[in-house]
Amino acid sequence: MNKMKLKKRDSNKFWKVLSEKKVFEFKNRFSVSIQKVKLPDGRIINDYHHMEFAESAVIVARTDKSNILFSRQYLHGPDAISFVLPGGKIENNEKPLVAAKRELLEETGYVSNKWKFLGDFVLHINYGCGRVHFYFADDVKKTAPPKSGDLEEMEILQLSEQQIIKALKKGNILCLASISALMLGKVFISKGELC
Amino acid sequence: MNKMKLKKRDSNKFWKVLSEKKVFEFKNRFSVSIQKVKLPDGRIINDYHHMEFAESAVIVARTDKSNILFSRQYLHGPDAISFVLPGGKIENNEKPLVAAKRELLEETGYVSNKWKFLGDFVLHINYGCGRVHFYFADDVKKTAPPKSGDLEEMEILQLSEQQIIKALKKGNILCLASISALMLGKVFISKGELC
Repeated sequence: MNKMKLKKRDSNKFWKVLSEKKVFEFKNRFSVSIQKVKLPDGRIINDYHHMEFAESAVIVARTDKSNILFSRQYLHGPDAISFVLPGGKIENNEKPLVAAKRELLEETGYVSNKWKFLGDFVLHINYGCGRVHFYFADDVKKTAPPKSGDLEEMEILQLSEQQIIKALKKGNILCLASISALMLGKVFISKGELC
Repeated sequence: MNKMKLKKRDSNKFWKVLSEKKVFEFKNRFSVSIQKVKLPDGRIINDYHHMEFAESAVIVARTDKSNILFSRQYLHGPDAISFVLPGGKIENNEKPLVAAKRELLEETGYVSNKWKFLGDFVLHINYGCGRVHFYFADDVKKTAPPKSGDLEEMEILQLSEQQIIKALKKGNILCLASISALMLGKVFISKGELC
């Protein structure tokens, strides 16, 4: 886990969890807890809500033609059609990179022998919601038909850089994990300008 | 709300919610529901979990020196220190742009008269988790001291492009909403290369 290197001025910023009670659980998927926390100034908050999601892995998978693999699918969360990068839940005791390789193969049928870790990040600043692990897989090659086993029907596509930019502008890449992965891919892989 | 323009082949991809039961609620913040849904192939799923979060706004605020405003703060969700873009919860009946302007002023003391909408997106492909609305505010100017009223002590900083890239590589911008906002800012504001 990446954590900003603590400076002396940070040591008094952390909160202390005095007690915690799980109030909802969807086994192996997510849970909601209510924490009693003590702030650095001594104030007590009795109902700070915390969520744990199963950890997940998301992959920026690039072909030898510099296209990126996406699925185009229905998402029941937002009830919309969207482009989505390959990825999914990390199973119990599974290493994140192993999960990333498994998800890429299951969802798209592609493999790579050039993997790079782009960091692990969180979904929500207040609730937490668990870690998402990001990977870049280069020179991916198709070795099998996709067989994701997911409930959604997926259409696997390769998008060029210009198609990705167009999709982002139109709001057709709906999920923050996919959008963040593209940013991290850009930062780690190229030396391009940011803004 | 942005939705991918539906094509004929999409019309049979949508799921139908047959019934829905709220199983947890944190008033005005988030709720968890269990849905009974019917898939396009006729299968019935009895326990599809759905979450609604309060909608939020996130702002990429650029100064006339091309620096971006961040807070540096403790985040109790991931229990870490992180750089975070300005933003926060949209209040009941508040328009997203109004919330963005309010949050920028409250958290940083800065204002702008050049606002651009970058789209609204979702936190999670399965659970949904509500919309995050992204804005770009250019030529921001400080007009007041910050007074966020948030529980966390915030330190307001201006980061250059190189500092942002370094922070992303070190995992010091921890949250997907901030990382996504930087990507969207890049796509909408410049014509730079993506990968």
